[in-house]
Amino acid sequence: MKKLFENSYIYIEKESSEIPWVKIFTKQNCKELSDCNETTRMVLFDTILTVEKCMLEFYNPKKINIALFGNYLPKLHVHVMARFENDSYFPEPMWGKKQRDGKPNLPDFNDFQKLLTKRLKK
Amino acid sequence: MKKLFENSYIYIEKESSEIPWVKIFTKQNCKELSDCNETTRMVLFDTILTVEKCMLEFYNPKKINIALFGNYLPKLHVHVMARFENDSYFPEPMWGKKQRDGKPNLPDFNDFQKLLTKRLKK
Repeated sequence: MKKLFENSYIYIEKESSEIPWVKIFTKQNCKELSDCNETTRMVLFDTILTVEKCMLEFYNPKKINIALFGNYLPKLHVHVMARFENDSYFPEPMWGKKQRDGKPNLPDFNDFQKLLTKRLKK
Repeated sequence: MKKLFENSYIYIEKESSEIPWVKIFTKQNCKELSDCNETTRMVLFDTILTVEKCMLEFYNPKKINIALFGNYLPKLHVHVMARFENDSYFPEPMWGKKQRDGKPNLPDFNDFQKLLTKRLKK
């Protein structure tokens, strides 16, 4: 999987989906949030916030969804998703019951990635 | 809904479920995580961590799940759940497809609440 971004503590991958959806992984090998060291956790929290703010600015979604599960893959990672009223699952979570054949008409993810990378490098 | 705990910034409610599941709400009225002020956000992050650590210690679950959705109720709140291999949905999220009639045999939630309150008051 191609990384969208990385620094010393975290890296970001894109999830294949009809909605803008990224996964932030910690480089420190942790199962739970409380397993990682404070610096990693602070960088992770800051990164979640930056991804959220970029998604809000770039996509103007109805809502941001954030989730930490790791039941299949017990390696700490955070899902950050931009949700739209016409996506296939809204208002259910992306893991819930499908509501419709959604087709959110969205700007190019590559442009989002450029904005996100710029903000994360600050 | 009876509050399990509250301070100046957040309050905690119990979700009715077969698993230990609490919801942390911010008192500041926010839709998204990035809408709330830094103090509220820091208290919220600290509270998530404390709930997670108490659940790990008290219930010894297979995994902690954390989620911020708010698609139905656009008021910032965080779900923190202790997951077990024999709960009804594992390894799916609690919003996913039911896997079995789960009956995790768990200690009394009231005792968990006592431990949690003690830790949060520190």
